[in-house]
Amino acid sequence: MHDPVAGTLMLLALLWLSAKVGGELAVRLRLPAVTGELAVGLTLTVLHRSWTAFPDVAASPATELLGGLGVVVLMFAVGLESTVPQMLKVGLASLRVALIGVVLPMAAGLAGAWLLLPAGTPLVLDLFIGACLCATSIGISAQVLRERGASDSVEGRIIVGAAVVDDVLGLLVLVAVSGMVGTASGGPAGPKLAWTLALALGFLAAALSLGRLVAPHLFSLANRFRGEQVLLPLGLGFAFLLAWLGSLAGLASIVGAYAAGLILEPAHIVDLERREQHTLVDLVHPLVTVLSPLFFVLMGAKVDPLALFRPATLGLAVLLALLGVAGKLLAGLGGGRGVRAAVVGWGMVPRGEVGLIFVAAGAQLHMNGAPLLSADAQAGVIGALLLTTVAGPVGLGWVLRMQKTEQQA
Amino acid sequence: MHDPVAGTLMLLALLWLSAKVGGELAVRLRLPAVTGELAVGLTLTVLHRSWTAFPDVAASPATELLGGLGVVVLMFAVGLESTVPQMLKVGLASLRVALIGVVLPMAAGLAGAWLLLPAGTPLVLDLFIGACLCATSIGISAQVLRERGASDSVEGRIIVGAAVVDDVLGLLVLVAVSGMVGTASGGPAGPKLAWTLALALGFLAAALSLGRLVAPHLFSLANRFRGEQVLLPLGLGFAFLLAWLGSLAGLASIVGAYAAGLILEPAHIVDLERREQHTLVDLVHPLVTVLSPLFFVLMGAKVDPLALFRPATLGLAVLLALLGVAGKLLAGLGGGRGVRAAVVGWGMVPRGEVGLIFVAAGAQLHMNGAPLLSADAQAGVIGALLLTTVAGPVGLGWVLRMQKTEQQA
Repeated sequence: MHDPVAGTLMLLALLWLSAKVGGELAVRLRLPAVTGELAVGLTLTVLHRSWTAFPDVAASPATELLGGLGVVVLMFAVGLESTVPQMLKVGLASLRVALIGVVLPMAAGLAGAWLLLPAGTPLVLDLFIGACLCATSIGISAQVLRERGASDSVEGRIIVGAAVVDDVLGLLVLVAVSGMVGTASGGPAGPKLAWTLALALGFLAAALSLGRLVAPHLFSLANRFRGEQVLLPLGLGFAFLLAWLGSLAGLASIVGAYAAGLILEPAHIVDLERREQHTLVDLVHPLVTVLSPLFFVLMGAKVDPLALFRPATLGLAVLLALLGVAGKLLAGLGGGRGVRAAVVGWGMVPRGEVGLIFVAAGAQLHMNGAPLLSADAQAGVIGALLLTTVAGPVGLGWVLRMQKTEQQA
Repeated sequence: MHDPVAGTLMLLALLWLSAKVGGELAVRLRLPAVTGELAVGLTLTVLHRSWTAFPDVAASPATELLGGLGVVVLMFAVGLESTVPQMLKVGLASLRVALIGVVLPMAAGLAGAWLLLPAGTPLVLDLFIGACLCATSIGISAQVLRERGASDSVEGRIIVGAAVVDDVLGLLVLVAVSGMVGTASGGPAGPKLAWTLALALGFLAAALSLGRLVAPHLFSLANRFRGEQVLLPLGLGFAFLLAWLGSLAGLASIVGAYAAGLILEPAHIVDLERREQHTLVDLVHPLVTVLSPLFFVLMGAKVDPLALFRPATLGLAVLLALLGVAGKLLAGLGGGRGVRAAVVGWGMVPRGEVGLIFVAAGAQLHMNGAPLLSADAQAGVIGALLLTTVAGPVGLGWVLRMQKTEQQA
């Protein structure tokens, strides 16, 4: 009897066991477990490259799907830990952090690309590389904040809020750059930009206002169900619905899932939670535990180890990464008085999957017949993204631990 | 920013919301929620057929994967509720139930196929149809038993145990029939049969003996981990590993997952459970809640509504289903004294995915150049499988509710 999921079962068992061992090694080295999971992914890819019989984790559609769902569920869980009013309170600080965190890395990326890339490189390429360094990959920082029990701190909220703004800004930059490249095919960029912005902001506004009005009614309807075990499927269904709608509006699906978590307040679901004797947060937690390591291992596995360690690309990557980290650390100051700037700054450092989506989009853009992003430039940017992705959790874990020790002393 | 999982998010939201509404309607009609979920799947397929813009649930690889994982996780959870010694206690009863439940439906199926199919139909086809009616689709009964709080009753254990034996027997029948059809290509069936049996039994014996020796050591090693949230990923990793090994030995992957659940006894993991403040059963539960409805909706969605309601096939389907139900109800008597034969019998009635796997295998077998299973015969057998799949949970839910009322009276 051939079983179509059998291969996936083996792969998932391998990923979970190795992710937990890698995470444990990282914890023993006083690093966040996420860094260990990223390293496990890289190691698995190296193993596959050197011994082709070893399964190719990065190429499995099953792990791709589960990892993708994992980060959506993770951001839903993060959203559940805050409410809309709490987020509005840190809204201005998030906006400042996001704006500085987009302007500075773009300027720095522009400068770095201009310094290192051959003369005559079009300005739009420098701009594009700068854009790749803007968007924060919030999944990683969210996981580190959870590990260290700082998810519902002021800094945690500012970071996540800024990441949402980042996503909108990043989207705009991508549209602007694509418009600059393809004015022939794409028409004038101005109206398109305005439309993209309106759609993204419109979705967020509608979700946070309408959603907050509708959600309580939906869940009080569900409370009349006689069947059992409705809270989690309905909660996840709600989150996935908003994630999908958000992606229709051009946002990353994690933004919609996060908005769903914000909208669902304890008051809306307390009756269902009492009846099922578990809170929604408690029920979502095992899903996060199981799915999010898949996402992080997969992210590590997608790195091309050969491209990464070529000296020329390594130089570009290190410089871009340094500039990117510096820009985000300065952005942390945007958090304002009484906020730990180092925590916010380091939280904004990782640029994982969002940057990778940018690079993939850039690889498809063509200018004067040649691809906008050469293979070398592409490897350099990916290298920089990877470096920030590893540096982010390490730095964030470090400042969180330092400050905890100070508080205890 | 194109998001590869966006479409899946929409589909999953749709499935969860409709599954819960369908389950609720079934509960209001005093039927098990599973029957509602099956009906929702069928309805979704009808919607897709009549309005092609509606997503095709049955054709989505993502739901296929998640549903497949869902039933594996469900059987792991069922296994966790029993231990190896408890299962050995009901072993003889399970064996009797399984043997009667294979011999009678095969004989009945043979008779039915001989009555209804045109003269000159080869005996091996009648045999094959009988075989399709043997294997119990335990996922459905397991879910009904869980819904009614009867998972850890004697009858519940006998049913699940008999389903494991069923699976081994069904495998043997499939190999024997394939051998009879393809003696030219397959060689003599005798040695192959013996090897298949040895492999399947060898796996079960090794898992239940070696596994029980090794598991405590593995989990006490994990207990030394400093990282958090290791219990669930390691537990699932263990289950998926055994499920995969089981499928290598020719068994359905749910048998391996169930064995993993049996092996893991509370004593092995109590330290980890205490540290993480949740039992493994508690942590697996949300996964079952979320994944298993996908499996049942998908099962309903895979039914071809047109083939089902053609009069000729409907006649064959109804007759085969009646014979199949009668055989399994008689098999329930094999449970022995003090065991509610009706509960055991109805629990063995559903023949969902295992029978479908058989039919799919049969569709690939050729005899004298023509496919062994004609399109009509195939539709009839699938119809019979579907009827038992709906009748099973309805009957099981009914006898469980009746006997509960009697006890209370």
